[in-house]
Amino acid sequence: MEFQIAVAKVNKYATSESGDTIEVVERPNGGLSVVLADGQTSGRGAKAISQLVVRKVIGLLAEGVRDGAAARAASDALFTDKQGKVICTLNIASLDLHSGTIVLTRNNPAPLFICRGEQIDRIDSESIPLGTSRDVRPLITEFQIEAGLTVVIYTDGLTHSGERRGQPMNVGEAIRSILEDQDPGPQALADSLLAHAVSLDDNRPADDISVLVLKFNSYTGDNVRRMTVRLPLEGTKNS
Amino acid sequence: MEFQIAVAKVNKYATSESGDTIEVVERPNGGLSVVLADGQTSGRGAKAISQLVVRKVIGLLAEGVRDGAAARAASDALFTDKQGKVICTLNIASLDLHSGTIVLTRNNPAPLFICRGEQIDRIDSESIPLGTSRDVRPLITEFQIEAGLTVVIYTDGLTHSGERRGQPMNVGEAIRSILEDQDPGPQALADSLLAHAVSLDDNRPADDISVLVLKFNSYTGDNVRRMTVRLPLEGTKNS
Repeated sequence: MEFQIAVAKVNKYATSESGDTIEVVERPNGGLSVVLADGQTSGRGAKAISQLVVRKVIGLLAEGVRDGAAARAASDALFTDKQGKVICTLNIASLDLHSGTIVLTRNNPAPLFICRGEQIDRIDSESIPLGTSRDVRPLITEFQIEAGLTVVIYTDGLTHSGERRGQPMNVGEAIRSILEDQDPGPQALADSLLAHAVSLDDNRPADDISVLVLKFNSYTGDNVRRMTVRLPLEGTKNS
Repeated sequence: MEFQIAVAKVNKYATSESGDTIEVVERPNGGLSVVLADGQTSGRGAKAISQLVVRKVIGLLAEGVRDGAAARAASDALFTDKQGKVICTLNIASLDLHSGTIVLTRNNPAPLFICRGEQIDRIDSESIPLGTSRDVRPLITEFQIEAGLTVVIYTDGLTHSGERRGQPMNVGEAIRSILEDQDPGPQALADSLLAHAVSLDDNRPADDISVLVLKFNSYTGDNVRRMTVRLPLEGTKNS
């Protein structure tokens, strides 16, 4: 089997920094975690908040702290630092090679989707962001990994796209339509969802948007780990 | 312009963990850093060392500490922890959007290569790993970013491949031959170098090998940031 992570991420129109932060860390007992945070508002202030949360969570995961405990610790730290005045959403998606499971931790009102073949499950039980109070509990979903499994996670910019002109995006339908038309790789799925959202906002995204797709494929290739990052540099002197 | 990072990474034959750790972090003042460490020996002990070093460096970079200072701090921490008995190589490659430069920090006897068109420069001035003494200085190379620029960084597993049968890999020649034959993307270049090394070791790598390629392209596409991670899961229950 092969595990793939794909991210597609865009800034709010006319802002130079995204308030979303996403990073990947190796787990000390085997496997990987992807940590996605969306700081309140946008621009530099929001970036500082989401970086603080991601840094805290990744530091704890790297020490072997469990995902739920890391999310609570980050919430307490944010609440203490900002006295409950600043909130931040958090998603952690972990491949735990020790247990052979995937663990999804969510402090984010935006739902997530789990797809197995034709079946697309929307996980949307009520979930509150970090930093809102002293005892914020994350929602945790854990299940065995299997070939064909796809998970789609995103920040609320995706859900809010199109609201400006009264046509908010239906993410579940968009996923179904992309998966029905083709058998996309995870990067193609993330790219298609993001492109759909951006087009609903007339190519001027009303918010930072991040889309994270995890996929398990059956696999018979080599045993090489690979990573690619692509960063457009529009704002640089030399572009 | 577009900045691309590509990584290809394989474990020493018959070991379940690589002693190499590589991670990417966003810089607080704009840009990205890639941090690559190779812990002494192989397997679990080496992994713990390289993770400790990468974690320390990334934590400092995220606070805005400069690359050279972060490398020195990691060296001091390792020296203090292990009393000079354990060493670890370190490479940091940073895209600094504030200065429009790329900053290469090296504490690694293995050289690195900077390619501009036909010109391939080998940067091989003497450089010692972290943890060897109290005052380890990193070598730092900084230059303006420009389209077409390619940087190749690797752990010593690449250089050592083929030694077992008396045909050590000539990395510079391999890079030249790949770049002459084609205009490979960074992932294709990293993959080709790694595949060449693994074939010299008869498909049983004698050491952990990590290859990191950075490339600047002229670019007219969208302003979406993308990341893909691919992780083969040979050892899992469900594979």
